[in-house]
Amino acid sequence: MTEFDLVIRNGKIATAADVMNCDIGIHQGQIVALAAELPKGTQEIDATDKLVLPGGVDAHCHMDQPMNDGSVMADDFYTGTLSALCGGTTTVIPFACQMKGHSLAKAVEDYHQRATDKAVIDYAFHLIVTDPTPHVLDEELPKLIAKGYTSFKVYMTYDDLKLSDRALLDVLAVARQEGAFVMVHAENSDCIAWMVQRLAQLGKISPRYHATARPQVVEREATHRAIALAELVDVPILIVHVSGAEAVEQIQWAQNRGLRIYAETCPQYLFLTEADLDQPGFEGAKCICSPPPRDKANQQVIWDGLCNGVFQVISSDHAPFRYAHPQGKQICGTHGSFQYVPNGIPGIETRLPLLFSEGVNQGRIDLNTFVALTATNPAKLYGLYPQKGTIAIGSDADLVIWDTQRQVTIANEMLHHNVDYTPYEGIALQGYPEITISRGEIVYQHGEVIAQKGRGKFLSCGLSSFARPRQRGKAVPCP
Amino acid sequence: MTEFDLVIRNGKIATAADVMNCDIGIHQGQIVALAAELPKGTQEIDATDKLVLPGGVDAHCHMDQPMNDGSVMADDFYTGTLSALCGGTTTVIPFACQMKGHSLAKAVEDYHQRATDKAVIDYAFHLIVTDPTPHVLDEELPKLIAKGYTSFKVYMTYDDLKLSDRALLDVLAVARQEGAFVMVHAENSDCIAWMVQRLAQLGKISPRYHATARPQVVEREATHRAIALAELVDVPILIVHVSGAEAVEQIQWAQNRGLRIYAETCPQYLFLTEADLDQPGFEGAKCICSPPPRDKANQQVIWDGLCNGVFQVISSDHAPFRYAHPQGKQICGTHGSFQYVPNGIPGIETRLPLLFSEGVNQGRIDLNTFVALTATNPAKLYGLYPQKGTIAIGSDADLVIWDTQRQVTIANEMLHHNVDYTPYEGIALQGYPEITISRGEIVYQHGEVIAQKGRGKFLSCGLSSFARPRQRGKAVPCP
Amino acid sequence: MTEFDLVIRNGKIATAADVMNCDIGIHQGQIVALAAELPKGTQEIDATDKLVLPGGVDAHCHMDQPMNDGSVMADDFYTGTLSALCGGTTTVIPFACQMKGHSLAKAVEDYHQRATDKAVIDYAFHLIVTDPTPHVLDEELPKLIAKGYTSFKVYMTYDDLKLSDRALLDVLAVARQEGAFVMVHAENSDCIAWMVQRLAQLGKISPRYHATARPQVVEREATHRAIALAELVDVPILIVHVSGAEAVEQIQWAQNRGLRIYAETCPQYLFLTEADLDQPGFEGAKCICSPPPRDKANQQVIWDGLCNGVFQVISSDHAPFRYAHPQGKQICGTHGSFQYVPNGIPGIETRLPLLFSEGVNQGRIDLNTFVALTATNPAKLYGLYPQKGTIAIGSDADLVIWDTQRQVTIANEMLHHNVDYTPYEGIALQGYPEITISRGEIVYQHGEVIAQKGRGKFLSCGLSSFARPRQRGKAVPCP
Amino acid sequence: MTEFDLVIRNGKIATAADVMNCDIGIHQGQIVALAAELPKGTQEIDATDKLVLPGGVDAHCHMDQPMNDGSVMADDFYTGTLSALCGGTTTVIPFACQMKGHSLAKAVEDYHQRATDKAVIDYAFHLIVTDPTPHVLDEELPKLIAKGYTSFKVYMTYDDLKLSDRALLDVLAVARQEGAFVMVHAENSDCIAWMVQRLAQLGKISPRYHATARPQVVEREATHRAIALAELVDVPILIVHVSGAEAVEQIQWAQNRGLRIYAETCPQYLFLTEADLDQPGFEGAKCICSPPPRDKANQQVIWDGLCNGVFQVISSDHAPFRYAHPQGKQICGTHGSFQYVPNGIPGIETRLPLLFSEGVNQGRIDLNTFVALTATNPAKLYGLYPQKGTIAIGSDADLVIWDTQRQVTIANEMLHHNVDYTPYEGIALQGYPEITISRGEIVYQHGEVIAQKGRGKFLSCGLSSFARPRQRGKAVPCP
Ligand SMILES: [Zn+2]
Ligand SMILES: [Zn+2]
Ligand SMILES: [Zn+2]
Ligand SMILES: [Zn+2]
Ligand SMILES: [Zn+2]
Ligand SMILES: [Zn+2]
Ligand SMILES: [Zn+2]
Ligand SMILES: [Zn+2]
Repeated sequence: MTEFDLVIRNGKIATAADVMNCDIGIHQGQIVALAAELPKGTQEIDATDKLVLPGGVDAHCHMDQPMNDGSVMADDFYTGTLSALCGGTTTVIPFACQMKGHSLAKAVEDYHQRATDKAVIDYAFHLIVTDPTPHVLDEELPKLIAKGYTSFKVYMTYDDLKLSDRALLDVLAVARQEGAFVMVHAENSDCIAWMVQRLAQLGKISPRYHATARPQVVEREATHRAIALAELVDVPILIVHVSGAEAVEQIQWAQNRGLRIYAETCPQYLFLTEADLDQPGFEGAKCICSPPPRDKANQQVIWDGLCNGVFQVISSDHAPFRYAHPQGKQICGTHGSFQYVPNGIPGIETRLPLLFSEGVNQGRIDLNTFVALTATNPAKLYGLYPQKGTIAIGSDADLVIWDTQRQVTIANEMLHHNVDYTPYEGIALQGYPEITISRGEIVYQHGEVIAQKGRGKFLSCGLSSFARPRQRGKAVPCP
Repeated sequence: MTEFDLVIRNGKIATAADVMNCDIGIHQGQIVALAAELPKGTQEIDATDKLVLPGGVDAHCHMDQPMNDGSVMADDFYTGTLSALCGGTTTVIPFACQMKGHSLAKAVEDYHQRATDKAVIDYAFHLIVTDPTPHVLDEELPKLIAKGYTSFKVYMTYDDLKLSDRALLDVLAVARQEGAFVMVHAENSDCIAWMVQRLAQLGKISPRYHATARPQVVEREATHRAIALAELVDVPILIVHVSGAEAVEQIQWAQNRGLRIYAETCPQYLFLTEADLDQPGFEGAKCICSPPPRDKANQQVIWDGLCNGVFQVISSDHAPFRYAHPQGKQICGTHGSFQYVPNGIPGIETRLPLLFSEGVNQGRIDLNTFVALTATNPAKLYGLYPQKGTIAIGSDADLVIWDTQRQVTIANEMLHHNVDYTPYEGIALQGYPEITISRGEIVYQHGEVIAQKGRGKFLSCGLSSFARPRQRGKAVPCP
Repeated sequence: MTEFDLVIRNGKIATAADVMNCDIGIHQGQIVALAAELPKGTQEIDATDKLVLPGGVDAHCHMDQPMNDGSVMADDFYTGTLSALCGGTTTVIPFACQMKGHSLAKAVEDYHQRATDKAVIDYAFHLIVTDPTPHVLDEELPKLIAKGYTSFKVYMTYDDLKLSDRALLDVLAVARQEGAFVMVHAENSDCIAWMVQRLAQLGKISPRYHATARPQVVEREATHRAIALAELVDVPILIVHVSGAEAVEQIQWAQNRGLRIYAETCPQYLFLTEADLDQPGFEGAKCICSPPPRDKANQQVIWDGLCNGVFQVISSDHAPFRYAHPQGKQICGTHGSFQYVPNGIPGIETRLPLLFSEGVNQGRIDLNTFVALTATNPAKLYGLYPQKGTIAIGSDADLVIWDTQRQVTIANEMLHHNVDYTPYEGIALQGYPEITISRGEIVYQHGEVIAQKGRGKFLSCGLSSFARPRQRGKAVPCP
Repeated sequence: MTEFDLVIRNGKIATAADVMNCDIGIHQGQIVALAAELPKGTQEIDATDKLVLPGGVDAHCHMDQPMNDGSVMADDFYTGTLSALCGGTTTVIPFACQMKGHSLAKAVEDYHQRATDKAVIDYAFHLIVTDPTPHVLDEELPKLIAKGYTSFKVYMTYDDLKLSDRALLDVLAVARQEGAFVMVHAENSDCIAWMVQRLAQLGKISPRYHATARPQVVEREATHRAIALAELVDVPILIVHVSGAEAVEQIQWAQNRGLRIYAETCPQYLFLTEADLDQPGFEGAKCICSPPPRDKANQQVIWDGLCNGVFQVISSDHAPFRYAHPQGKQICGTHGSFQYVPNGIPGIETRLPLLFSEGVNQGRIDLNTFVALTATNPAKLYGLYPQKGTIAIGSDADLVIWDTQRQVTIANEMLHHNVDYTPYEGIALQGYPEITISRGEIVYQHGEVIAQKGRGKFLSCGLSSFARPRQRGKAVPCP
């Protein structure tokens, strides 16, 4: 039997399906043994009375992504991944975003430079396709997919990002042909622009009107449309950051019919409400994200969706804009219109603790579901499984040892991102990561970061097993 | 008591609610008395054993409408309205269509010239808004609405007609503000264009592929989107020419939730199927219309929808293109692609007989529903009630005396339109209009047309009672 | 032309489809003429600025119905019908209820004796079938149907009334065979009994727990079951007194699928809520009825259902039990359990004014819908049309002249029933019946009753046109 | 490190979440190690190129169950469990069925005697509650639950088994209180009886009419009712043997709303259709089971339900009645009515191979889903996890080594049950169990059974983690 560089002893281990008490043997960064009792390792961790879970895979987060409006993301790959690992996440998949009129391959190159030498945990890239020219569709995408960029996000809103339905169909057709996987930001762009204009005419520009401008119907419509386009092309898609009951209803409708429609939600739709945008002064800007948080009743629908199969994944959608900063939320000052406030909230470090405490500890979801939603499913969805996302022989030893008893009250000062606030300030939690291990290496321990800058490696993604068409009934015509 | 210019004696009269046996007294073109026994009139018609129904209101038909592609509608206002009255229709509402870049008011003027001196029955105009510039929205539309053009059709497909979602919202907002009523042609333009291109690449251009290029999902998506936009603006709309179960499901979903969504269907979705486009040679082109006919199961859903409240109106969508004609279906010859074939089928004369025979006589719908769908509801929907669409004191004496026993087999040679075919050739019917009366004047009788060219009058429409917003919950912001 | 015993001049007349200004000529109790201007009648009423509507048909009301528990209905056919006509209702259809173990024909005979010489307006009988023995199914029911008792109510709850599913199927099968029409009281008996027992064990017996014992799920389940049984037999049914969103959802589901499922609601589900059962002392007992009132959100769903086709009829479900009376609500005193409180509330006189004021005047429903729901549809549903329920040539001159401006605040002292309270005390209304006419005779005028006791006639019902099976797909096996 | 009694080397292992290549170390009947390379074991199996899956848990199967109609199950615990293990199943949960009027505890005692000394694999018991007297509810059930009989099946049909809604509520309330789990056979008894009677009157008694007598609406209704009862009590339930789209729609409706409704299906609803009951002579009786198989379109809905989360478990519902036998299908000869034919089909041995070949190999479900549906989920649902149903440290070494390439054509002669037919005769499969291991012991190998009669042990079940109430909103009143 192999020798072990590290043995984690006596923990309670959970995967997406199982819970067991055993030792974990690690060799050269991989899990090589699970057993009732393992021989001594070079290094040992006693995990008695602790949970050992797969490190989180945050499949939707933004860091150091170039912006068009003069805003700047406060987290680069160093602080972003540092924050991630302190919250129990060991893999991130941020976005290499094509600028309209430019090469997608170039965007990938550029993004690699931003990550290399900085990331402290492993990372893959989703592509954001904003300009699917024939060259991009026929040349760049197939090549990039072959190189391990197998998923892309497309936008139905934001002027600098959005695709027409026609362009969306073209991208979906490439995904179908190449076996790639498409994530859709589903909000109706025209509706939002129209609402924003109407509100502006009425002088309704404070942060709370961000939510007014993006009511659920706007998300529901785009969700139905995305489903319809995917149905026409016969290709699976995933709807990202689903916020409430109306979009959920459309997704369930599709899933019930046997369509391969997947969905993601985020902590902001479980923990925040529209009321958080309606704070004194400009404070509400801290919670401006799209879609906006809804209300308590919708939070319950999202919680239900974590159990009943609507959602396969929960991501942070970490978008690190500082609050009191001219390149952040206050890019137009504290009296500017909500429409110029950078969208998004930080959350890469709080994702797992929030969901663990309110989900697992409160009995809303079980431990296996927690692991599935936060690690195994995202790894499978985006072609990183079995290297990432589980505790299995041969998988990377990306592990988190949880102290399920630890009481923590969230405060921004304890977080490791480069942002000056957290929307979850003051929330009391039970259960928190104690040790984070990346490829067999302890990178975080009892509040102390040990990870060396730049140790994170780029992950080339395989094809997603979720991306398979149904191939049922009349196929779409393929030349 | 008034003297009667005309008394129709002893008929069985039906309105949208009632059936009664009585005499009808007419004076100066209006119905002035309904009674068990009326004094003698100047003129008399014995309607013993006959049905007397309100003349049909065909709220969706095209005649002499300028086209952009070189095609020409074979029916002008003379042959179009002649064909209508021979089929029991006494009011038509065709479309004054704005050309992109041009004035809507000009289009109305032009269209008046086409109608005046030709129409043999009364007519109103819907507007087609294709270019909702601020001038059109803020100046032309309000003025036109005030002048009696209170309804408009908008298109979600066809390059020369379609509106973006944003433009649609603008039009809906004007409708809400002015109390006007919007009809929506709901098909996803990009999906169709994408399918057409794919099919073309595969050489699939014969008429049957018209149906392949416009599957139900394309109609369903646009229907959901139109509903969502109307919900956002809080204004009722009507979805025109609904073809099958998938769009019906969306409409029911909206109606079930209390949204004011109305719907129209047409005989082609009750009597034709996709198979009618798959005929030897180019024959299928005769049945090319959009959305395309579906299948038997979908026909049943449409029949059900006539009973259970999905549909308020059944129109012909008469679009008179000749088959064997270079400005008609064969504009690109008999080997050209389906995509260039003018869309639409003739049916202004067959609408009522088809629905009467298969609907009323076969027991699928009752007589009141027939009247409601074909006359009363369209009159109410488009602000022509109570002048048109019913048999009531004070209403125009637009009446049809039906011989419910008459056996007719549809043949194009018996029809009065200027088109060289009917898609319903050979269908055997029972029940047919025997006498048509317009404003108290017998204009058609036992197969003979008596109407004088140009006798038809333009009808200025009032505001639709169906156009009222719900004004519930959070209102859309109005400057 | 006939002479007129009575001419109502200059009113604004509404039917279920039309609104018109005209005179109404009446001869020998029937409407014989509608005209712009009629010759003088023997008697004349000036209805200038008034509405003239068909007299209401209250298709679900209880009077002088023998009870099993010692309670006594306070209204006999005299006070019951008197109260009805003062509220604008000119036809009632109460229930001849079979006692288990007894003949249904006998119950009808007995009930005739209760009505004769007392009723002041015309009446028909529904049957209540509680014991469908072979004799009842094969002999009594067919004979009674042939004699004009063409509709029956069946109960899914109440120990002395309820049918098993098997018995329900037998009754539905007779209805199908004979063309009769079945009304269903849909609540799950076992669920209620189980809840009542649990509540009793906890000492929860005050009136408010009546609502706790009958949550919506209990009504929803029985509604789904009734629909399923009707679907199996392929026969239309009507669900009576639908109270809220959950039952509505089931009915819409069925209607959407093309099943012939009809529904009735009552003012209590538009004007009362569960909170009305939670009053100091025993007061809540006044609002104990089954199903119980729900909440504001459910009221809105019921209002929507009046517009979008869920409901065909609105009835009072008048059940006249006195409040402060040992044979009424206080049959077990004021500290007894809710389970012994007689179910039902009085409302035969307030039905139309409530719906007119809050429905028509507030713009929730239009005038035609008001007429359809309160008069025309119930007449059609139960085979009384065209004699009753409309204003048409040949129909009985049952008319109500409404003063649409009159302001009334409901107070029990102004009502004519024999009950010591109204649940609608204090509600302010606009619009009230001014004159009620029954078969051409003025029976109520400006607050004064003129009707002679016993003038009301029994109405033999024809077969309902709503009772026709779909006869589609696989038929149920018929011996 | 422990020594290994058995090492399975080099296999491809799958759990409900993971797939990995590794060795499995077994000691004293339990899995004690999973590792890339294990030291030598006392015994070794080379699983190179083979799949190693958890042994199947058949959570719904009948064997040696006493019947009321004179029929006899052909399989006792010996042949039944033998057949199971040859098909890759290592745990069975048959039913200890209370006879009406008798003790449930006695039924359990009796059933133990039938199992002991016969079973060759481990087994637990579900209870069937047919007579929930206060004694049974308050005494027997809590005691039995405490002893490890934590799940019970209740019937909504079959005269000798069915519960009233009231009794069902009582049983559900006990389940809620004790944390036990209820399985429901959902068909409407009265509907079936009524249909059977009608069919009998028409002489329609051949096997095909079994399906006619139990149309989907009968299953749908009972499913909705079961859901409603469970919702009232606020306790999770599982609907067993779901056959088609209509029941699925109800279950999805409940799941979508966040209710804890689970569902099981069986191979007969994936592989058989109604047409299989319509065979020459009496052959159709072979496929008589309840609910009956439906059609191809419904099979697809069931397949979809295996992917999209409707179903948590797939069981055999093995009911071993011989075809050509007077105590089997021919209990009333070959011309008797379908209503006397014992319900059920054999399938304990074919469950896994059918699902593997058509599900996994054809790409309809993935390997993890296969394991979840056939082993892990049933173990979790019924309190046998983690002892059974997975491959994890500490779990029983119940394993199946699959030859994924082996081609097999199902023939009854190759099966090990004591029944004279299989409904799947002639179906060609790819993939079949090669070795079955029970608690570390090879019990079946390359077609040869090695298991010693009586080696199977009774399993005392824990409480199901699926049985937790939602405890949301208004709780049901609990004394
Ligand atoms: Zn996004
Ligand atoms: Zn994002
Ligand atoms: Zn159109
Ligand atoms: Zn058109
Ligand atoms: Zn009732
Ligand atoms: Zn009643
Ligand atoms: Zn069963
Ligand atoms: Zn069974």
